[in-house]
Amino acid sequence: MSTSVNIVRSERVAHFEQDVWSIFTPLALECQAVNLGQGFMNFPPPDFVIEAGREALLRNDCNQYSHPMGRPRLRNALAKSYGPLFERTLDPNTEIVVTAGANEGIFSIFAGYLDQGSEVILMEPFFDQYISNITMNGGVPVYCPIRPKGDTSKDMSASEWKVDIQELESKITPRSKIIVLNTPHNPIGKIFSREELEEIGALATKYNLLIISDEVYDRLHFDPKKHERIATLKGLWERTITVGSGGKTFGTTGWRVGWLIGPKALIEPALAAHTRVVFCVNSPLQEAIAIGFEQAEGHGFFGSQVSAYEHKRDKLLSVFKELGLPCTIPEGSYFILVNMEKVQVPQDYVFPELLNSRAKDFKTCYWLTKEIGVCAIPPTEFYSKPNRELAEKFARFAFCKTNETLEAAAERLMKLKPYIKK
Amino acid sequence: MSTSVNIVRSERVAHFEQDVWSIFTPLALECQAVNLGQGFMNFPPPDFVIEAGREALLRNDCNQYSHPMGRPRLRNALAKSYGPLFERTLDPNTEIVVTAGANEGIFSIFAGYLDQGSEVILMEPFFDQYISNITMNGGVPVYCPIRPKGDTSKDMSASEWKVDIQELESKITPRSKIIVLNTPHNPIGKIFSREELEEIGALATKYNLLIISDEVYDRLHFDPKKHERIATLKGLWERTITVGSGGKTFGTTGWRVGWLIGPKALIEPALAAHTRVVFCVNSPLQEAIAIGFEQAEGHGFFGSQVSAYEHKRDKLLSVFKELGLPCTIPEGSYFILVNMEKVQVPQDYVFPELLNSRAKDFKTCYWLTKEIGVCAIPPTEFYSKPNRELAEKFARFAFCKTNETLEAAAERLMKLKPYIKK
Ligand SMILES: Cc1ncc(COP(=O)(O)O)c(C=O)c1O
Ligand SMILES: Cc1ncc(COP(=O)(O)O)c(C=O)c1O
Repeated sequence: MSTSVNIVRSERVAHFEQDVWSIFTPLALECQAVNLGQGFMNFPPPDFVIEAGREALLRNDCNQYSHPMGRPRLRNALAKSYGPLFERTLDPNTEIVVTAGANEGIFSIFAGYLDQGSEVILMEPFFDQYISNITMNGGVPVYCPIRPKGDTSKDMSASEWKVDIQELESKITPRSKIIVLNTPHNPIGKIFSREELEEIGALATKYNLLIISDEVYDRLHFDPKKHERIATLKGLWERTITVGSGGKTFGTTGWRVGWLIGPKALIEPALAAHTRVVFCVNSPLQEAIAIGFEQAEGHGFFGSQVSAYEHKRDKLLSVFKELGLPCTIPEGSYFILVNMEKVQVPQDYVFPELLNSRAKDFKTCYWLTKEIGVCAIPPTEFYSKPNRELAEKFARFAFCKTNETLEAAAERLMKLKPYIKK
Repeated sequence: MSTSVNIVRSERVAHFEQDVWSIFTPLALECQAVNLGQGFMNFPPPDFVIEAGREALLRNDCNQYSHPMGRPRLRNALAKSYGPLFERTLDPNTEIVVTAGANEGIFSIFAGYLDQGSEVILMEPFFDQYISNITMNGGVPVYCPIRPKGDTSKDMSASEWKVDIQELESKITPRSKIIVLNTPHNPIGKIFSREELEEIGALATKYNLLIISDEVYDRLHFDPKKHERIATLKGLWERTITVGSGGKTFGTTGWRVGWLIGPKALIEPALAAHTRVVFCVNSPLQEAIAIGFEQAEGHGFFGSQVSAYEHKRDKLLSVFKELGLPCTIPEGSYFILVNMEKVQVPQDYVFPELLNSRAKDFKTCYWLTKEIGVCAIPPTEFYSKPNRELAEKFARFAFCKTNETLEAAAERLMKLKPYIKK
């Protein structure tokens, strides 16, 4: 018989809640639901990127440790591709760090800047990993909601979700250190306008905050909206670290290649943390992403990717139009927030106990996955507890899926009709 | 003109010293030295592993997010390969986590267990990343040296480096939470004997410590020495997390695939941290490492790898024999500690200022790299300041290099002859 041993986990990880993915991903599998939940592609990355990865594996320098900052070829390719977008010459040796996905990049920024009690201003809904990445580094998340200002009972543009700048300012205290911006936004699909960025930037300047601009969806914006970068606004390069993701850019979420771009002085603490957390990022797939950037233009890749996503978005939107369920029409990213208020889940439907402590959208999405056979994600997961009521009527559908998958989802979603209140 | 912005880095990263790699890697390049410094291979991984990676890139599920625990195929392959070595059935769903290199695995254990002021017992010399991985998570490293007990003026076995168990016990306090063991050991090449492991294990049990057993070199042990696993000793599975590395196992240091093996209860906090730090590990190279394990036996891979390394070790040892420089003969891993006391660096040699604060071995290795054209690493980097004198007469040479590289190094090392005291 083995004696059982009690070694207490750290405070840091003791209070993590069960996350939405560990509920809905197995559920979708179990019910064989069409999975429009997690934001990964179920179609292959472009051939030229795959081929670049296959070639890299044949070169031994690509199979061994890279420089902690990232492979020179990738840093050069990023500098070249992003320079014009940032309207400046980027120095690949000081202003760019390659990270193990955007996720580890964000973790490393928090590790490099937060001390016990440092506050981070987040807008809700937020990318869920921010919270643990902050609290694991002793920080305190402070929340300010982005509210739907239009009529949510009709289709509305994602641009009608707004943050109240006075409310945002009211969240700032002497302990505030960082403000996190996400544009194009997951899950709203909002692209912050230049005016909105100016207001946020002015606050950051007034209170000397570091801006983390999470722009992982920067290559996914739909006409006529253009993606704007806060780091290009006057005086804001100096206080902004912009986060990017090879996974979102080239449809390779499983390659875990991301990057941080910013001035040397801001990058250094994040690089210091990153070097200790992972040492460096996997080499062959860095090389492949480098080649991806080098060849993207020649293949007209970013343009055709946007067209493909626009088509997918419209396909899914038309399903909800037919059902009469109002949508937030995304300007960028690959998510649609659908207002599910009119869907009447049977009163006597029995839910598993673990949903009792969750908001209404968890139940709606559970029922949808199980009974309609389409998995969507409840967005209250992306809100602090007090503000969950703002989102409990919505469900998030991801459209980074093949047209066949979207069509299969469409067919199943028609089964919702009898449950929809007129 | 851009206003410069002052956003203060966290305490966590504020006190990092410049590391040995950022001094010696550029220096080696600049001097075109034969680089026996950093422990990466300059020969390719086995064909069947490369081919597996190339195949995986053609499968879309291998290009998207994996389960945070790791791809099922890799966890199954690890359970199958390691089960017999751990003398138990390993549960791939609860007892194994795939990490972004051993490095991130170790970071995540510390993140999952350490609170402010928790102490971690380390034996010196240590793998340098341990220190920052501990302090970044609020922990305090506490040091106990492994001392050469033989006559260092002659060749000696790595087994003659010993930790004094009373001294080790004296380092334990009520705040001690973890003890870190590394076997086969970098840089000593020591494989801890069963008796030594029993003594260390008894302390861990007596004081209820978690054992991290860093066994990244577990497949690299030289006859007649066999690698022993502390987790197989009576009562110690329950308090041990064993760390492994695909990079060391298959010669793919740049793939960043590692793993943790231990009982469910111990693994959980590390998994919780890991899931937030990186979310998951790159998918295609996980798949390739899985296939590597599946096919290793069929290719007689581990045996032939050991033979190849044994040959390389002996080749390099014979060079130092010819020079009359005494060596620690490694039982495992791919490093040789060479006693450089007899090497007389010219008295008037001018060193860069940044070496002034470092121990003598930094100067010896600098001169060796620059004037002899062979880069080795000063092992005092792997000691706490008060104990650096224990190692300043040594230099660490890595032999995970092609035979051609080792021969080129041999030729250059002959230039040492006029500098060696008889
Ligand atoms: C807003 C946002 N930031 C960051 C990430 C993480 O990106 P990566 O997969 O590159 O870690 C995601 C992934 O869904 C995201 O939606
Ligand atoms: C003792 C020890 N542990 C851990 C590591 C890190 O291994 P990985 O490259 O898998 O992160 C190394 C690498 O040199 C090492 O020597």
